[in-house]
Amino acid sequence: METIKVAIVGATGATGSSIVNGLLASDSVRYEITALIRPASMQKPAVAELAKRGVKVVSAELTAPQEELVNLLTGIDVVISAIYIAELKSEMLLADAAKAAGVKRFVPCFFATVIPPKGVTALRDMKEDVLNHIKKMHLGYTVIDVGWWYQLSIPRLPSGRIDYALTMTNSPIAGEGKVPSGLTDLRDVGKFVAKIIADPRTLNRMVFAYTKLWTQTEVRDLMDRLSGEKCTREYMSPKEIQDAIAECLTDPSKYIAVATLQYLNSWGVRGDNTPEIAKYLGYLLASELYPELASQLRSLDEYFQEVLDGKGVPPYGKRLG
Amino acid sequence: METIKVAIVGATGATGSSIVNGLLASDSVRYEITALIRPASMQKPAVAELAKRGVKVVSAELTAPQEELVNLLTGIDVVISAIYIAELKSEMLLADAAKAAGVKRFVPCFFATVIPPKGVTALRDMKEDVLNHIKKMHLGYTVIDVGWWYQLSIPRLPSGRIDYALTMTNSPIAGEGKVPSGLTDLRDVGKFVAKIIADPRTLNRMVFAYTKLWTQTEVRDLMDRLSGEKCTREYMSPKEIQDAIAECLTDPSKYIAVATLQYLNSWGVRGDNTPEIAKYLGYLLASELYPELASQLRSLDEYFQEVLDGKGVPPYGKRLG
Repeated sequence: METIKVAIVGATGATGSSIVNGLLASDSVRYEITALIRPASMQKPAVAELAKRGVKVVSAELTAPQEELVNLLTGIDVVISAIYIAELKSEMLLADAAKAAGVKRFVPCFFATVIPPKGVTALRDMKEDVLNHIKKMHLGYTVIDVGWWYQLSIPRLPSGRIDYALTMTNSPIAGEGKVPSGLTDLRDVGKFVAKIIADPRTLNRMVFAYTKLWTQTEVRDLMDRLSGEKCTREYMSPKEIQDAIAECLTDPSKYIAVATLQYLNSWGVRGDNTPEIAKYLGYLLASELYPELASQLRSLDEYFQEVLDGKGVPPYGKRLG
Repeated sequence: METIKVAIVGATGATGSSIVNGLLASDSVRYEITALIRPASMQKPAVAELAKRGVKVVSAELTAPQEELVNLLTGIDVVISAIYIAELKSEMLLADAAKAAGVKRFVPCFFATVIPPKGVTALRDMKEDVLNHIKKMHLGYTVIDVGWWYQLSIPRLPSGRIDYALTMTNSPIAGEGKVPSGLTDLRDVGKFVAKIIADPRTLNRMVFAYTKLWTQTEVRDLMDRLSGEKCTREYMSPKEIQDAIAECLTDPSKYIAVATLQYLNSWGVRGDNTPEIAKYLGYLLASELYPELASQLRSLDEYFQEVLDGKGVPPYGKRLG
């Protein structure tokens, strides 16, 4: 079996954990994983857990002198960044070191919905800056976007019985809720990644890896059917979304609200998060590259049933309900 | 024969003329061309010449109210911008109107060397802004880059006999002059465009259309051989090029020097203007799409011989020699 050496930043985060699970479970490629962990986090239980599972854990600060990072990355085939959003700027330092170390493929932290490169969401704008930096260096790369998570798509039920699984206030319905958007179970992200990073066809390309298209109305209808309740339906017109973004932008502390609303505008109003727009923007589709994966991906029905059964695990490890 | 309706901005310029010639000469597609001409230029001889050759000439200001442009573009299949560099910002208005008019394919003004999207040359950065604007609108597009023109690659001969054909001071040799770069006869640009804009494979893609790779040393050796003289060889190290760019950037009036030096750094030092980097950046190669074109493209030998025979026509219609 082929062996690929992977270094990952953010291995204990929501996306990073899914990726580590996916790589360790791979049956077509053997992944040797090195997790770059910040010195301050080395003692965390999640890090000890990684080591127990065969992940090599090394202490690394992205802002350290470049030669330290280059030493750590020498001999590594693929570097994956599942970095915390606020650290996106240090990702460029990681890319610089990867280039200097001769890394063959750099996977920058995208792992979100399909969005045009500039001018739609501030977050994508920043990610695009990193990608442009990578392209300037002629560094091999693969961008992976995974759509919107099931875990962020749970509507609220009047009984409150699934509030435990809500991570952020659920998005209101944009417009009439008829815009399709690609959804994926967070836990399946790693399955896609394990395929994509071993595939020569995806080198220097963007890949859109999602499970199924859903409109916000369909998502609510599904929850109604499975729960026997009628879930909350709050509507927000495109104009109201725009106005709310403009208002939140005046207050720097509201950056999470801005990000959430800009995402909603992109996938819920503009309809960016679809295979058609992905192809227009130059993405390959994981569904076309790996049709054999389809049977291994969790359906939204399965996930909602888990949540209703009290077994839904909210991402970020936080329970807001 | 298929008919495609094309509107073009900049039809009388260096690139625009080549494109119009290429479209009119096409034997596989019939092109109906509308040239959008600024009101102030409507009386120019070159515009009358276009009309005589069957091009529909209409007066249009890109900064006019959008509905005027939309009216002009309604029913047009392909819009080509071969706009003057300084007008790049109005190109976004043209793209807006093209989107509103239902134009299927917008060809923004690239038509230069292959360069990474951001951070290498200021000109490409601006072009990328237009492309990102297009992508934000989900407007069909094709980016066409053509390499560096033969017409800008003429070395100086001590005898001065080909000075008449020099348009700008010829670039010094970057480093040791060993970096290959794709060159094309300006007059052949239109031949590529006529193929590319009728091709469904190039929709929403970038295409690199060049004739042959040449190093600066090879170009000078060729001129030596054909002329029997020894052409001037001025060298500039990568560091000197960087320093010159930095110095010129402090003086806004030196924007042409900055552009020329940044181009030289990209194609002569970094080696961006090659099929390898083009593919890395996502370009298709015209040589692979249209191998049948090869026999119709002018060689650099032919062009240099024309210049030595006193028949070289400098681009931009100006003779500086």
